[in-house]
Amino acid sequence: MPENLKVALDAMGGDFAPEVTIAGAIEAVSEYDVEVILVGDRNRLIESLKTKRFPRERISIHHASEIVEMHESPSSAIRRKKDSSIRKTIELVKSHEADAAVSAGHSGVAMATSLFVLGKLPNVARPAIATLMPSLTGYFLLLDAGANVDCKPENLLEFAFMGNAYCKAIFNMPSPRIALLSIGEEDTKGNELTRETFKYLKKANINFIGNIEGKDIFSGLADVVVCDGFIGNIVLKVSEGLAETIMKMLKVEIANVTARKLGYLMIKPALKNFKKRMDYSEYGGAPLLGINGTCIISHGRSSARAIKNAIRVASEMAKKKVHEIIANTLHKTTEDFSYVKE
Amino acid sequence: MPENLKVALDAMGGDFAPEVTIAGAIEAVSEYDVEVILVGDRNRLIESLKTKRFPRERISIHHASEIVEMHESPSSAIRRKKDSSIRKTIELVKSHEADAAVSAGHSGVAMATSLFVLGKLPNVARPAIATLMPSLTGYFLLLDAGANVDCKPENLLEFAFMGNAYCKAIFNMPSPRIALLSIGEEDTKGNELTRETFKYLKKANINFIGNIEGKDIFSGLADVVVCDGFIGNIVLKVSEGLAETIMKMLKVEIANVTARKLGYLMIKPALKNFKKRMDYSEYGGAPLLGINGTCIISHGRSSARAIKNAIRVASEMAKKKVHEIIANTLHKTTEDFSYVKE
Repeated sequence: MPENLKVALDAMGGDFAPEVTIAGAIEAVSEYDVEVILVGDRNRLIESLKTKRFPRERISIHHASEIVEMHESPSSAIRRKKDSSIRKTIELVKSHEADAAVSAGHSGVAMATSLFVLGKLPNVARPAIATLMPSLTGYFLLLDAGANVDCKPENLLEFAFMGNAYCKAIFNMPSPRIALLSIGEEDTKGNELTRETFKYLKKANINFIGNIEGKDIFSGLADVVVCDGFIGNIVLKVSEGLAETIMKMLKVEIANVTARKLGYLMIKPALKNFKKRMDYSEYGGAPLLGINGTCIISHGRSSARAIKNAIRVASEMAKKKVHEIIANTLHKTTEDFSYVKE
Repeated sequence: MPENLKVALDAMGGDFAPEVTIAGAIEAVSEYDVEVILVGDRNRLIESLKTKRFPRERISIHHASEIVEMHESPSSAIRRKKDSSIRKTIELVKSHEADAAVSAGHSGVAMATSLFVLGKLPNVARPAIATLMPSLTGYFLLLDAGANVDCKPENLLEFAFMGNAYCKAIFNMPSPRIALLSIGEEDTKGNELTRETFKYLKKANINFIGNIEGKDIFSGLADVVVCDGFIGNIVLKVSEGLAETIMKMLKVEIANVTARKLGYLMIKPALKNFKKRMDYSEYGGAPLLGINGTCIISHGRSSARAIKNAIRVASEMAKKKVHEIIANTLHKTTEDFSYVKE
C-alpha cells in the first residue's frame, strides 16, 4: 500500500480557526487517504483534539508560536513573523515533510509567503490564483483572481497555460475550453492588454475559444476564463456580493406577503442548496499556480467542509504533480513563444 | 405655460423596434410634459401609429431612410449611413429641433455618433457611459460602463466629477458619495491606475469615500462607483449574467420537488418583482456624460416601460441642463487639477 499523502494545514488561519480547521482536518482524514499536519499553537491544538474522535495516526501537530493578523502586510509578516502558522505550514512543503499546504488565513500573506519560501517554477514569470466559480452546467476556473494587478500579455498567456494544465490534471478534461475575458467577442474588442493577448492565445497550442463577455462566464461556455488579477478579483467579489444581495432582496420581497412567506418556507431547501452552490468558499479554496510546490489558499470564512475539500484538492494536486506538469508545459511554451518577451 | 421639452427617439433602434419604441413614446407623452419626435421610416411609423390612441400633438415623425444593423462598426456606420435613424435622432439635438436624444439601437454606434455629431463638452477629455445599477438600499451609478477601455487617472477623476454632477442634478443628492472600484479599501490597494487616481480623488472637492471592493458595490455604501470602461463593462455584464444564472439555477432547484413547485408558485410575484429590480434595462438607459448635448443610450432589449423611463430621464437631463452643469464643474476642476495633466 502506498504511503498516504501529507497535507500541512494552517490550523490557526481563518475566521473560525482553530475549531473549524480541526473539524475539516478530521473530516478529511476520515474520508480520504490523506494525513494532516495541523500547524499552530501546540497546547491549544492538543486541548481541542482531546475530546474528538478520529484516526490518531492520521493527524499530527507541528508547533508554530505566532499567528498572522488580518491587518498585517505581507512584507511585514514575512519579515517579522518567522514562526507564524502560515510560514511554518509552507516551510513543511519546502522541507518535504508535507506534500502540500492549505491556509485559510490572510490570503495576501499566504501567497507572498509561498512565493518567498517555495519560489516560482522555472519559466513562470507570475504565479496566479485560480478560483473555481459556479456555472449553469458546473464550474469554471477563473485566473488570475488577484495575485497580479498589473499584467502584460505574456502573463495572461502563462495563466492560460497553467489553467489548461490544472483542468487537464485535476478534472481529467482532455481539452479544456480556454476563453479570454473581454468586452466583446470579436478579437478587435477589448483593451490594449486583451487585444495583444488574443493574438498570442490564437497561436497557442491550447483549445482557445476566443473572447468571452462578462454576461457569458456563468453559462458554461468556457472551462477556464483568463484575465488580469485586478479584474479577476473584482469579478470574484462582484459575484460574491451580488449573490448575497440577491438572496437578501429575495427575502425582503418574499417577506412582504404572508402567502409568500409560506412559499418561502416551502422553497427554503432549494434556496439553501443554491446558496451552497454559489458560495465559492465551499469549493475548497484556490490553488496558487506557478509556485514550486502545492499550496491552496482557502476563503477566510471557510466551513469545515470547505477545509476538507481544500485538503482533498491539495492532496490530488500533489499526487498528480500538477506543479511539475505546469513546469514542463511552460518550458515548451517558452520555446514556442520566445518571441513574445523580445 | 412653458413649452414641452422635445425628445428625439430613434424609433428603429432596439430588439423590438419600432413597436416597443412607439409604445414607450406613447406612454411617455401620456404621463409626462414631453413631446416625442419618432425618427425612422415614415411610412412604417405612420402605419404603426394609425391604430393607436395618443395625444396627437405630442408625437411627430422625422423621416430617416436607413437603419444601423447590430454587426456594423461605429466607424463604418458614421461614414456610410448618413441617413440612419440613430444619426438623424442625434442631429435633431445638434440643430436644436430636439432637447435630447434616446436610442436603444447599436450602443457603440450611438455613442460614436453622439461624439461625432455633438462633440465633447469643453474641458472634457473622455465622455463616459453612466449606468444605474440596483443596490440593497436603492441604486448606484457606475461609470464608465464601456466608453473608454484604456484610461488614465485624469479620466477617472473626470468620471467622478461628471457622476457627482449628474447625481446632484437628477437625484437631488446634496453630496453624492463617490467611491473608486478597487480590490481593497486601503489607498495602497489596487493597480497602478487606481492607486494614482486615489491620490487625485482625495484632493478633489467631492465627497470621496475611498476605494470600494466588488463585494460592496451592491450594499448601498456608494452613490457613484468610478472605474475604467473595460472594468465597468465587465462588472455590468457579469452582474447581468449572474442575476440571470441565479434565476435559472433557482428554478431548477425548485423544480426538483413538487412541494417546492407549489412554493415557487407562491413566491412567483416576489421573483418577478425582484427580476424587474435587477433588470437594468428597466432603468431607462445610460446617459452619455461629457457630450455637448443630452443623449441616452438604452438597452437593446428595452421594454416600452424602459423607453418611457429613458424619455423621462432625457427630458429631465435637458431641463436641468446637466451638460452645462458638467461643463462648468469641469472648467473649475481643470483649474484645480491643472497639475494632473502636466
